[in-house]
Amino acid sequence: MKSILHIVKIGGNVAEDTVQLEAVLHDFAALEGHKILVHGGGKTTSEMCRKLGIPVQMVDGRRITDAATLEVAVMVYAGLTNKRIVALLQSMNCNALGLSGADGNSILAHKRTGAAIDYGFAGDVDKVNGAFFTQLLEAGLTPVCCAITHDQHGQLLNTNADTIANEVATALARSYEVWLHYCFEKPGVLLDPDHDESVITGINQEQYEEFKTTGVVSGGMIPKLDNAFAALRAGVHTVRIGGPVMLQPNMVCTTLSLF
Amino acid sequence: MKSILHIVKIGGNVAEDTVQLEAVLHDFAALEGHKILVHGGGKTTSEMCRKLGIPVQMVDGRRITDAATLEVAVMVYAGLTNKRIVALLQSMNCNALGLSGADGNSILAHKRTGAAIDYGFAGDVDKVNGAFFTQLLEAGLTPVCCAITHDQHGQLLNTNADTIANEVATALARSYEVWLHYCFEKPGVLLDPDHDESVITGINQEQYEEFKTTGVVSGGMIPKLDNAFAALRAGVHTVRIGGPVMLQPNMVCTTLSLF
Repeated sequence: MKSILHIVKIGGNVAEDTVQLEAVLHDFAALEGHKILVHGGGKTTSEMCRKLGIPVQMVDGRRITDAATLEVAVMVYAGLTNKRIVALLQSMNCNALGLSGADGNSILAHKRTGAAIDYGFAGDVDKVNGAFFTQLLEAGLTPVCCAITHDQHGQLLNTNADTIANEVATALARSYEVWLHYCFEKPGVLLDPDHDESVITGINQEQYEEFKTTGVVSGGMIPKLDNAFAALRAGVHTVRIGGPVMLQPNMVCTTLSLF
Repeated sequence: MKSILHIVKIGGNVAEDTVQLEAVLHDFAALEGHKILVHGGGKTTSEMCRKLGIPVQMVDGRRITDAATLEVAVMVYAGLTNKRIVALLQSMNCNALGLSGADGNSILAHKRTGAAIDYGFAGDVDKVNGAFFTQLLEAGLTPVCCAITHDQHGQLLNTNADTIANEVATALARSYEVWLHYCFEKPGVLLDPDHDESVITGINQEQYEEFKTTGVVSGGMIPKLDNAFAALRAGVHTVRIGGPVMLQPNMVCTTLSLF
């Protein structure tokens, strides 16, 4: 029987709010068994760019990462946000180890080319080093991944944190029973975006297609859910989407399933 | 017989010059056996502070680290400089893993108190997690340490990079034959600071005391050499001080010895 591995992705709005972050990390630290944290940090990156006079360029919610923006993204994601999380987890007796994709060659990517829009130093993932993650987990360490990857030719790249979580989950699904948790500011996928109590507690693939047609699911939720269902098809055991309290027992959230 | 462990500390002036950094990393990557890199990054931290309108405060070459400066130091040391080095080493087939002291609880420190000057979030090292470093080294990884530590209560701290190198070297001296290399902008300890060819190739403790009395060694070299001799007394096999080419075979540098 495979042992359980929790992979928790915390979105920018949660990771960048001091109070929410500490609360989520407490719940995360309390999870038993193997676990991996993946975090964003986009708002701080944008703020830092503004302070440094670097223009913030976004297209459909995706960042255009020129050389100056990449430096800021690396500083904020791999430096400020990652180390703050690692130090907090250490204070909670969770033996965290921060990683960019370059560290231990953990996540290899290539610079996105051929897209209609030039996203600059944006990295599409080629390979997650599953053996390295397994080695860390079995040594009792808790990897904390930021959204920075590398191309093995010395170039760091900016990668979407949801994608990192998905790719890591998929790569480790053969060795572990992977539970993938997307923790963001809403309590789950909502039937009515204006009412937090309208959480859809379960969605299968067929229902998802209906929700897309009827517009219940739209905008930024579509790539998130597309990726989540792809992870399930690739062998990830469970995907859950919920709010900052979702790691506590018996909390309402959205659980995805294939059938 | 113990196996050799090379610990190389590269100073800020070398780490922050793109051309020199790449050259030193090539030599470092070519070293056989176990190795650890320790790097500074003070100049970039000061530059970034200036860009962000944060006053740079130094006393006797030591930084006063207020909360805003600490954020910048974490961004620059643990983010920008560390990940740049890790990505470059990965491109040279060296399986580097970047670490702050919080990562894997590798270096525990406490906030300096009771000094005549309040250095702010400056950390004095309490304990290097030798078992963790050994685990990484034996797994074929090359730790790359920045000068950020933590107090295990969630607080990151700024620590002198020379001190980090010394403490790590001392902690691992029982398990390895440790060679500690200080790589900085000068080719070694100079008899005449204006002539790079005046390198003193060997200094023992007795000579060092003489050099201090006669003023041959002064200023910032004194704490560096005090620490280096302390490391030798604590069981470090060899301490070398030299320039950017010091890791190449048969290069002139200063080798310290007890007798």
